[in-house]
Amino acid sequence: MKVAKFGGSSLADANQIRKVCDIILSDKDRRLIVVSAPGKRNKEDTKVTDLLIALADKYYKEGKADAELQAVIDRFDDIVKGLELSSDVTQMVADDLKKRLECSNGDKDKFMDTMKAAGEDNNAKVVAAYLISKGINAEYVNPKDAGLLLSEEYGNARVLPESYENLKLLRERNKIMIFPGFFGYSKKGDVVTFPRGGSDITGAILAAAVKADVYENFTDVDSVFAANPNIIDNPKPISTFTYREMRELSYSGFSVLHEETLEPVYRMEIPVCIKNTNNPSAPGTTIAPTRKLDNGPVIGIASGTGFCSIYISKYMMNREIGFGRKVLSILEDEGLSYEHIPSGIDNMSIIIEQKQLDKVKEERVVKRIKDELKVDDIKIEYDRALVMIVGEGMMSTVGIAARACSALAKANVNIEMINQGSSEVSMMFGIKAEDNVKAVKALYDEFFN
Amino acid sequence: MKVAKFGGSSLADANQIRKVCDIILSDKDRRLIVVSAPGKRNKEDTKVTDLLIALADKYYKEGKADAELQAVIDRFDDIVKGLELSSDVTQMVADDLKKRLECSNGDKDKFMDTMKAAGEDNNAKVVAAYLISKGINAEYVNPKDAGLLLSEEYGNARVLPESYENLKLLRERNKIMIFPGFFGYSKKGDVVTFPRGGSDITGAILAAAVKADVYENFTDVDSVFAANPNIIDNPKPISTFTYREMRELSYSGFSVLHEETLEPVYRMEIPVCIKNTNNPSAPGTTIAPTRKLDNGPVIGIASGTGFCSIYISKYMMNREIGFGRKVLSILEDEGLSYEHIPSGIDNMSIIIEQKQLDKVKEERVVKRIKDELKVDDIKIEYDRALVMIVGEGMMSTVGIAARACSALAKANVNIEMINQGSSEVSMMFGIKAEDNVKAVKALYDEFFN
Repeated sequence: MKVAKFGGSSLADANQIRKVCDIILSDKDRRLIVVSAPGKRNKEDTKVTDLLIALADKYYKEGKADAELQAVIDRFDDIVKGLELSSDVTQMVADDLKKRLECSNGDKDKFMDTMKAAGEDNNAKVVAAYLISKGINAEYVNPKDAGLLLSEEYGNARVLPESYENLKLLRERNKIMIFPGFFGYSKKGDVVTFPRGGSDITGAILAAAVKADVYENFTDVDSVFAANPNIIDNPKPISTFTYREMRELSYSGFSVLHEETLEPVYRMEIPVCIKNTNNPSAPGTTIAPTRKLDNGPVIGIASGTGFCSIYISKYMMNREIGFGRKVLSILEDEGLSYEHIPSGIDNMSIIIEQKQLDKVKEERVVKRIKDELKVDDIKIEYDRALVMIVGEGMMSTVGIAARACSALAKANVNIEMINQGSSEVSMMFGIKAEDNVKAVKALYDEFFN
Repeated sequence: MKVAKFGGSSLADANQIRKVCDIILSDKDRRLIVVSAPGKRNKEDTKVTDLLIALADKYYKEGKADAELQAVIDRFDDIVKGLELSSDVTQMVADDLKKRLECSNGDKDKFMDTMKAAGEDNNAKVVAAYLISKGINAEYVNPKDAGLLLSEEYGNARVLPESYENLKLLRERNKIMIFPGFFGYSKKGDVVTFPRGGSDITGAILAAAVKADVYENFTDVDSVFAANPNIIDNPKPISTFTYREMRELSYSGFSVLHEETLEPVYRMEIPVCIKNTNNPSAPGTTIAPTRKLDNGPVIGIASGTGFCSIYISKYMMNREIGFGRKVLSILEDEGLSYEHIPSGIDNMSIIIEQKQLDKVKEERVVKRIKDELKVDDIKIEYDRALVMIVGEGMMSTVGIAARACSALAKANVNIEMINQGSSEVSMMFGIKAEDNVKAVKALYDEFFN
């Protein structure tokens, strides 16, 4: 059994929905389908979810938003007509929206979640109606009936553990199931939505619950690439990489999935396949628990800018028990998350995303570290880039660091920080942000050309 | 004004003391002299301090230890005779020891400190008596009179801040002052000793207090070397290195000073010169706040074995605020100090000295990290070596990492961990302990041959 999730751009109009249904029908194992709300049809278009937010906002304030309501109905009507379905389907959508608007006299967060969820919910019904109209044994599945129970955190819900037992039963249904993404229900029976990446989360939960053979995630790219296509022309596509490699590549800036969303399938060791709705015959990219190491030691190069390094030095730092813990406690108090802590004997550099620091917070953090830890020196170096080379094969290959460092030296890139833990699945170089493009090119040439 | 400290082997017998006095007199700036207790005259010999401990232990238990007392008196008498001093000097030592033994009916720690300090104290008096017998304007300085006040932590005292104001006045005395190392006095007036390296600490405190031009530390080596002489034949001597470089080289296993002891001179930016009593014309090694970078980018290679790496992995670790702090809190609770924390996105390796972990503690730490932090994986990798290349010049030189990694690759050493903070004064490689010698040789060849 395969769980397939289709994103908003894959379901933006009738034509796209036809493509999606062809994809569904082309593989009899694709039985549990997660759909997003209709996305943008072109660059200037508005996503249905954004139309719904505008509708809900205005209606909550003014008790009336006829034009905004009509805009949503028109988007669905357009799809219904394009799919040559009965106008009853549009009427069903309109009735559903009106019913949801009736909740506007309660809690705003609850109302917003009810409204936002309408895009996925109605789209699932439309897709199911279309498949049924073609004589396919398909059905819309209501997340409430299926038992997708979430914590009562509007807009930021987490799945409750009992959901998995409930959803497991979907495995037994002998139909193609169309399941709306992005939301579930609280124990009280109210609609609650996931944070961003919501439909991906629904798909991952379903795939884990039914122990799917694969979780297919259809987007609008053919595959994940070995390097950022904005830096490297036509970078090599990655056919398979491991969860660990995917995580280490997360600075890449060309990520197609929120990795948080994959935790349920990661735990169940279910492979994820990223495929292109508009080119479904392309093999896509598979993320698996393990892979054959037949592709060279390095599978990808990721880089990100916008980092800074907080450099701290103190004589005899390495003999002061509790020093590192105290530094990290101060960062935690200030809500700062860090990436790496490369260190010398008497100094440490804490690498963080610099957007986390404004002038006030920076001054407070520096003052606290100075005063509470009596350091000899502290300074913040801005505009650093982190460049990572990633690959499970690096562990078993002597000389990777030599090749990487030599390539960077030849490109005249000064390596300010280096970090490699004993997993040996990645190696990090901290450099000046201005050297980022040069560094990625040099490393790509070394390991891929 | 120079402060010169002479260690136990430099003062082991009359001949050595004559050499020391020649050294003192050969430079009129050497005016404040710190002496240790007489050390070993040969490999089988016993240090006076150890004789004193044996005497004190037995006397405390049995109220009598004639043979042990005589052994100490004999050592001093030997020196006194060798220096052709009056037998009154030996009598003074014997009287002093007997007076100290009278304190045996009190607190044991206090008694032990009083007894241990007798080695340095009487040796300072003997050296002063010898200089005076030669017609030199010299004097023994009593730390109590000079105002060297310490915390009341027997065997582990710290200097009290007011000592610096008191000791500053020594600058004004127009004599060669012989100051016993290793001990001072509590505010109550009792003898208290420093932890190990005690005479070095006394010297550093005096040098800082009188703002010495240099703190000379006379031992029995000509200089500090660029690599461990047990691994590299005739390694290059280091003529000058910085405090930071000295600290980064502290894994070297051929350290001649306890670095903790240098904190007072480090703070005052006073250079330290390590010299050989038996070869005083050799230039020695100077440790200074800064140095000319005229010696190549790498000044030394240090390595140490006996480390292990605690490897922890958890999906989405880098997004879990507080994760690192919690790991370090557990280590702190368990009294473990760590060296470095190289990391990937979802994993961290904590490098610690493995002698800190016994089986029971290991199991407890692993269990706590598993249970409290819900990690995916934790394992301990034993018998790792840390190899450091160190040099202030590395910062301004592109390509050091490439040269180091290439040298290690050529020697077929697999680099498991790499760590370099933005100070760029050192680069650490974590490798298997069995590769340690191979790695040091390869790096020495690369940077020094």
